[in-house]
Amino acid sequence: MPTLAPLASPDDPRIDAYRVIKERDLVGRGGRFIVEGRTVLDVALSARNRFALESLLLAESRVHALGDLLAQAPDDLPIYTAAQPILDGITGFHIHRGLLGVGLRGEMPSMAELVASLPEEALVVVPLGITNHDNVGGIMRNAAAFGADAALFDFASCDPLYRKAIRVSVGGSLVVPFAREGSAEAILDLLAAHGFELLALSPAGATALGDIRRPKRAALLLGAEGPGLPESILARTRTVRIPMRAGFDSLNVATAGGIALHALTSGR
Amino acid sequence: MPTLAPLASPDDPRIDAYRVIKERDLVGRGGRFIVEGRTVLDVALSARNRFALESLLLAESRVHALGDLLAQAPDDLPIYTAAQPILDGITGFHIHRGLLGVGLRGEMPSMAELVASLPEEALVVVPLGITNHDNVGGIMRNAAAFGADAALFDFASCDPLYRKAIRVSVGGSLVVPFAREGSAEAILDLLAAHGFELLALSPAGATALGDIRRPKRAALLLGAEGPGLPESILARTRTVRIPMRAGFDSLNVATAGGIALHALTSGR
Repeated sequence: MPTLAPLASPDDPRIDAYRVIKERDLVGRGGRFIVEGRTVLDVALSARNRFALESLLLAESRVHALGDLLAQAPDDLPIYTAAQPILDGITGFHIHRGLLGVGLRGEMPSMAELVASLPEEALVVVPLGITNHDNVGGIMRNAAAFGADAALFDFASCDPLYRKAIRVSVGGSLVVPFAREGSAEAILDLLAAHGFELLALSPAGATALGDIRRPKRAALLLGAEGPGLPESILARTRTVRIPMRAGFDSLNVATAGGIALHALTSGR
Repeated sequence: MPTLAPLASPDDPRIDAYRVIKERDLVGRGGRFIVEGRTVLDVALSARNRFALESLLLAESRVHALGDLLAQAPDDLPIYTAAQPILDGITGFHIHRGLLGVGLRGEMPSMAELVASLPEEALVVVPLGITNHDNVGGIMRNAAAFGADAALFDFASCDPLYRKAIRVSVGGSLVVPFAREGSAEAILDLLAAHGFELLALSPAGATALGDIRRPKRAALLLGAEGPGLPESILARTRTVRIPMRAGFDSLNVATAGGIALHALTSGR
């Protein structure tokens, strides 16, 4: 277990990375991201995690309760502790869970490299134009739960390493290999070139989800709630609908994706 | 279409019901609830809705864009309009969507009456100890989308007519008949007496969801994330698991419920 380093002041330069964190902060800034709460830290310290941690910052009052988890941390991981008011002074907001960590994004493979590395039998999730952090987090949580091999976001979607997206993903953002770049069209070209069948979820999809037999390489396309996937995308994909009650055909996009992932993975 | 009533002042007594709305407000207070945004108003004005509206409050700038929807409102529904700053002064927060309504809860059937009124073939959702408004809203959205016949909440769960729960439900809270009262045990006794098979979602459930054949009368039990359903409940129900990847068996409760509702209703 690493040694704890108590902080005497919120101005300690060793915890500069935690200063005035906002929802959108720390993505891109030196390639760092923020981990919050026990469950996400558990994932971040586990073998499932794909990223290194740079440091942790804990409320003194939480150290005892987190002892079992901290024992799993690498010996050289700096763990700073402080009284709650100092902690809140550092971040600029009240840290309910009393636990933050800074992770390092490191070198990430390009989307082309990621797709080229996938196994022969593969299931990927493709969120297109998803700008809501909750939905991106929910999609990554479901992708992790159902063992999707990768998530491929277009650049119009928000980053799965945003603070809130990581939190909502319950750590799924740290587990599922992902890339985020380029246009929807470029992603579909890449997937088609690698033999993926493109399955697009759409309320007016031609085939009911229950009638889909999972292809060896499947890409599940998800569009933003409201507008959904554009016609130009639907025209080049196999469109799939989740049957719903007439007059209320409205599902959250992460929920719809979870339903489809379950249907494509159950029985395997 | 009703006549619009422009407001000259945020202190106008006719819009007392809108004053200083907070997340938890207006539930129980004179039996009112708050409707927000175009999509929920659409549901609230439709035949699917089970509640009466008392009034609407709109930003002047939104009146034109909402014209088609307002045309569906009853002629005697008061529709107040105001400039955005007056609107924000009334409610105490910025109304992004520029549209609020007050609904009337009215007389609601008891849980016993609701269960007694269900058809011979019925599917009900039973959220137990769900205290998160987002999750309650998500459950009601899914219940509406998959045509559940009712939702039965224990009193420990939060009210589906909380402002945020209605918003997250995209109006599903106004569509699905529900009751909220008593203990989990009392609800299960009632359902068992009416011939419902009790299906409890649990990560360690004995039967995989895909192997469940829907009984004529099915009750889908959902517990809070984290603790899940207590052992005393699981012991008297048929436990059902959603198969997930080893090491990340974590789904949002509303998502898990949506997956189960899809499995129980698809193919019908």
